[in-house]
Order: sequence, then structure tokens, then C-alpha cells
Amino acid sequence: MPDPTESLLAALRAQARGAPDSGIVEIMKYGRARQGVTGLWAGEGDTPTPAFIVEAATRALAAGETFYTWQRGIPPLREALARYHTQLYGREFSAEEFFVTGSGMHAIQIALAMTATAESEVIIPTPGWPNAAGAAGILGARPVEVPLRFGNGGWTLDVERVAAAINERTRVLIVVTPSNPTGWTATHEELTALLALARRHGLWIIADEIYARFWYGEGPRAPSFFDVMAPEDCILFVNTFSKNWCMTGWRMGWMRAHPSLGQVIENLVQYSSSGVAQFMQRAGVVALERGESFVAHQISRTRKSRDIACEILGGTGRCRFAAPMGAFYLFFAVDGETDTHALTRRLVDEARAGLAPGTAFGPGGAHFVRLCFARDPLQIEDVCGRIAEVLK
Amino acid sequence: MPDPTESLLAALRAQARGAPDSGIVEIMKYGRARQGVTGLWAGEGDTPTPAFIVEAATRALAAGETFYTWQRGIPPLREALARYHTQLYGREFSAEEFFVTGSGMHAIQIALAMTATAESEVIIPTPGWPNAAGAAGILGARPVEVPLRFGNGGWTLDVERVAAAINERTRVLIVVTPSNPTGWTATHEELTALLALARRHGLWIIADEIYARFWYGEGPRAPSFFDVMAPEDCILFVNTFSKNWCMTGWRMGWMRAHPSLGQVIENLVQYSSSGVAQFMQRAGVVALERGESFVAHQISRTRKSRDIACEILGGTGRCRFAAPMGAFYLFFAVDGETDTHALTRRLVDEARAGLAPGTAFGPGGAHFVRLCFARDPLQIEDVCGRIAEVLK
Repeated sequence: MPDPTESLLAALRAQARGAPDSGIVEIMKYGRARQGVTGLWAGEGDTPTPAFIVEAATRALAAGETFYTWQRGIPPLREALARYHTQLYGREFSAEEFFVTGSGMHAIQIALAMTATAESEVIIPTPGWPNAAGAAGILGARPVEVPLRFGNGGWTLDVERVAAAINERTRVLIVVTPSNPTGWTATHEELTALLALARRHGLWIIADEIYARFWYGEGPRAPSFFDVMAPEDCILFVNTFSKNWCMTGWRMGWMRAHPSLGQVIENLVQYSSSGVAQFMQRAGVVALERGESFVAHQISRTRKSRDIACEILGGTGRCRFAAPMGAFYLFFAVDGETDTHALTRRLVDEARAGLAPGTAFGPGGAHFVRLCFARDPLQIEDVCGRIAEVLK
Repeated sequence: MPDPTESLLAALRAQARGAPDSGIVEIMKYGRARQGVTGLWAGEGDTPTPAFIVEAATRALAAGETFYTWQRGIPPLREALARYHTQLYGREFSAEEFFVTGSGMHAIQIALAMTATAESEVIIPTPGWPNAAGAAGILGARPVEVPLRFGNGGWTLDVERVAAAINERTRVLIVVTPSNPTGWTATHEELTALLALARRHGLWIIADEIYARFWYGEGPRAPSFFDVMAPEDCILFVNTFSKNWCMTGWRMGWMRAHPSLGQVIENLVQYSSSGVAQFMQRAGVVALERGESFVAHQISRTRKSRDIACEILGGTGRCRFAAPMGAFYLFFAVDGETDTHALTRRLVDEARAGLAPGTAFGPGGAHFVRLCFARDPLQIEDVCGRIAEVLK
């Protein structure tokens, strides 16, 4: 009898077999087997979803909202998303532009299914969150990584380098700004230049601006493609409830697209998740409509933690990083440490600090580690103190 | 300026643009605009999720289970799935064989991403639930429909006809048994024959047995590929919490696969939904462990409704159907009625009965309409009485 382990795997579609494993799970398993480790490896905070949001889901569940629902999302949530965007971006949005998805990841999967043809190329700046590349690969497209530069001016995206990566197979440009893990955030000039490139070459842009409000520059949010685009531009926005409202575990996100694409998006929802639980969507409405003071508190706390992490790790004299302009990660290299896996294990063992290895974020990240500072400033002070002690 | 409606659609990936619209939504919109229509068009009952299941989710939410969780599903749910299968199928299952997904649809999407290569062919008996074909098309595979025969012996699947549809591009055979909408249910002999075909040609089987317990033959469930398969067979089972436990709106399902495929499935979850809310999974555990008397009640009620629908519509002398052996649909043709869309509209207008047009279920369904009888027997008696009155 053949060994199923071999034969079944061999019978799989190559793109499924080739989907990469998460680069973070290994160190999480290593760290969880040890006592007293503070895990800052994942992209989430330490705060559960606030009660006023949870209660909206609980009420809807108790009211029996457990049936099939709209594939595009319930109308009150689409309307709340329009109002939220109108407020945040200072221009009018309509409910017809919004589509509820089962996580930001699901929104990315749909956006890629709309744009990334087989054998096409999808340009992704790196170091970057690896999941969009993973999803592109499963569709049979090829992720093409364009490394950011790391220098005295921090992380920079060389638009010329993006332009040089474009060829006749290129279909999509994925722009995550602010970026996980680097904190790089596109300026208006860079957004304009990237959009011009996309227009010139007939590319789609998938704009992942989920960290827009975790922004440490001026104003209430990071620069956005919404600031520079025209209505007919080929841009699909993907977003999530996860970060702003501490709802990582819920798996609820949204897309913003031109309403002319609505039926296609509805069909792609139908043939992937067939919608998002209505009782969860009720919680989404409340998050958008009553969540502003909570979000403001989260951001102010995260900003404090960022400053503390930068100060303590900067003070070691051994950590090289750019203070992140956005998102909630410190992505740093340590002088003399070239093996990021060994370093993350050592930090677990000696500093009881769980960080993610930079290799998880593609080319350019190999010498770095990622620390999530979406935590209480006192905890960040404590953990960074332990790391500094080990690195001294 | 170009019209975005045209130019954006034209710029989409063809497989996304080509994904078919739901064939049921049109009549639902038509019916909802009218007063007093009983909608039996969708594949769900009239019972909200029972309180003991809802409360498990509510408790988990209140306890702060709102963080990222296991991509394969929480261990207690995977263990509960193993026990449930062991009980239902009379052989041992282990938690390592089970993977929690964001709906049965998501399980199908993952199963297809594992097996349906670009340009490959996926065989699907019809009339059938259209979503698997839709998902295959989005991946760039070609659904190949093999019609069931409808005759005096009811719906039958001609295995020779399936064999004749296989060519060098065929990769997958999708078997939904009991079938939505026809109620056709494979016998052990047919399952054995289909499995032999798949073995001979190196095909994957995607086994959708979500209606296994809504079975009107002998024994507690319909015949299953679990009864005839060997461990090394290339079969992926897709399933859902939707039907047995009245959880359609939750979007939670599972896959059963050989454990050697676990890492691939984990990665495909990662790059599509990134998991299922932990608080929902807690409800799934309770459904599996404490849901048996509820499920038994649902099935017994549905069986009564089936008998009533068959009796009343059979009594008109104009309705042709096979009493369904499984699932919860009556799929019937009406003598002299050849336009299913006109018929469903007329039944809305004159009988205040919302049925789905047979065209929604692919070749072979065009002259039929589908009635969901997962309802209170009194309601089914009432609606079928109104339909009979109109058809007399």
C-alpha cells in the first residue's frame, strides 16, 4: 500500500502544495513551551474587543439574527462604512462602494481573484506582510518583491525600482501603507507617483491601508490613495475591523471599490465565504458609529508604547531601526546578529520576549526582528528593558 | 473621461467577471416586494439557532475570546468533530483529520484550490447546487456538468455517463449526496463505482455530504464515502454547521482530510480567511456535543413536512417529482409549464409561495422549481395547499 503522506501530497495542485508556511508560527511554538514569555510576535494587541461592541453581537444573536444575509453586507453596515470614510477622508462616499468581507485577508483574496490572472506578476514591496503574496501564489500568479531601501533616512520605497519591475505580465501593484512590518508610510508624492505608474501600465492597485489611523505624523491619519485618485482609477481598497477596534479574532473586513464592480464582488463573496454573520455585522456598525473614543485611546496608548520602545532599544546602541511613521511594529536589526531565528530564540530564552523573525516578511527582512508594541506602555517598557539587558 | 462602469469591468480578470450571478436572487427580490409571500426559495429553515448553542458564543465573547486563533480550528472543536464522526460513521476518527472553515462554501473553495488546476475539468452532476461550479470557474478550471436522468425511478446518476465525461484534463469529481436540489442520494454501490472511477483515473473526489442526516431511507444517515473508502483515497470531505444545527448565518464549516494534508490546508486557510472566530467555534463544540436531540427533532419535523409536500403536490396530478431520499427540497416540474421563471413569478403572485427556479441549478433543471420544506409541517401544508389550488 502506498504511503498516503507521500501520495496524497503529490496529487495536490502545485500552487496549493507550494503555499508557504507562516514564518512566525515556529517561534510562537518555541516560546509558548516556555514560562513567562511575553508574546509580541503577532499583529494584535492585548485588549479584548470592548464590551459595547461585543454586546451588539450578543443582542443580535439573542434576537435570532442567525440566518443567511446579504452577500455584500447588511445595508446598515455599508451605510456606516460610507459615513466613517466620509468623516475620515473628508469627501463623500456612498454605501454602494462598500462590501463586507470575512476579514481583511478575505478582501485581499477577492481583490486578487478580480485582478491577478494566471502567470501574471503581482508587485509587492518588501519587507512586507507575507499573506498577499501567499494568496497571489495560490491563484497561480507570481509575487514579485521589490525591496524597500533601509538607510539613514529610514525605509524608503524607490519608485524607479517599482517601475523597473514592471513588464508585460504585471497586472497588480499591492501597496500596504502604513506598512507592516517596517512602518514605512507612503507620502502623497509617492502615492501620486505609484498611481501614475499604475495608470501608465494599466495596472490594478490593491491598497491596504488598514493601519491608516496608527499614524505618528501630522493629522488624524496617514496619506491615502483616496487623497490622490480619480473615480475611474483601478484601485481596490482592502480593510479590516481587526486593528482599530481590537477585533482581530472576529474575521471581519471590507472592500471599497467602484460600484460598477459590485455584482462581481457579490459573486466572489458568494463563491468563497457566502457572506459574513449578520450578528457580527451588527457589532461592526456599533464599532464604526460609537467607537471613536475607543480608537483614539488605543492610538494614543500605542504611540506612547512606540516612543518607549524606540527610546529603550535605541539606547542600547546596538539596535538599528527607523522609528515607524505608522502601524504598530518596531522592526529592528541588531549589530552583529545575522541569524534572526537564533536571535528570536535567544530573546525568548534570555529576555522572555517573543518577537517575530524578519525572514517571515520576505527579502530585505532577514537581519531584522519584529516587535508588536500595541500594548500597555508599562508592558512595553518592561519587555524592552529585558531585551536591552540581553543585548547590552 | 471614460465611463468607469465599462472600463473597470473590462480591466477585471475574466474568471472574476465571468462568475455567474445567483439564479435565486431575482425571484427573491420579486417576491420580497409583495405582501404575505412565504419564501421557500433559500436553503435554510425557519428556526433560529437554538439558545444553548448561541449562549456558548455569548459566553466566549464575554470572556474575551476575541483574539487570533488556530488556523486549523481550536483543538476542542477538532476533537468534538472527531467524536461526532466516530459516533455517526461507526469507525475511529482523530482530531488531526479535521479542519474548521468559514462555511461549507469556504471548505469547497479550499478543496478546489487543492485540486483544480488551471484549465482542468471538474465533473459535477446536475441539477446541482451551483456554487461549487462557480468556485471552480473562478480558479480557472472548467466545470463539466453530467446530467442526472429523471424518469419513473426518480433521479438517477448514470456512472457510465460520468465515466464518459472523463478525459486527460479531468482532475476532480464533485459528489453532493444527498443532493440539493434533487434529493438524489448515492447508494453504496454507486459510491463504490464512483470511487473506482476516481481511483482508475487519478481523480480527486470532493464529497459534499452536508445533508447526510436529512435522510429518509433506513438508518440514521445516508450512505457515505466513509463507508467505502480506504485511508489513502484522494477524497476531501466538506461540511457545514448550517443545516443540522440551524446555523446558516454563522458561516462555519469543516473539512475532513488525511492528516498528511494538514499543513497545506492550514496554509490555504491562512491565505483566504485566516481562521474562524474562536467564540463561534465554542458554539460549534456545544452543537456537536449537546445538539443530538435538537437535530433529531429537526429531522423528524422535516420528514413530516416532506411527506406533506409530496402528498399535496402529488395530489394535483400535474406535478412530476421523485420523493426525495435526502436533503430538504422538493424539486418538481409542472405539466404544461415550460418557463420556470414565469412559473415562479406566478406562484409568488397567485399562491404567495416563493420557490427557486430550476434554472439556478444547471442543465437538467430548466423545467423544475425547488421548494425548501425545512419548515413547520403546518406551514408546508398551508403553502403547498395554495400552490395546489393555483395549479389545479
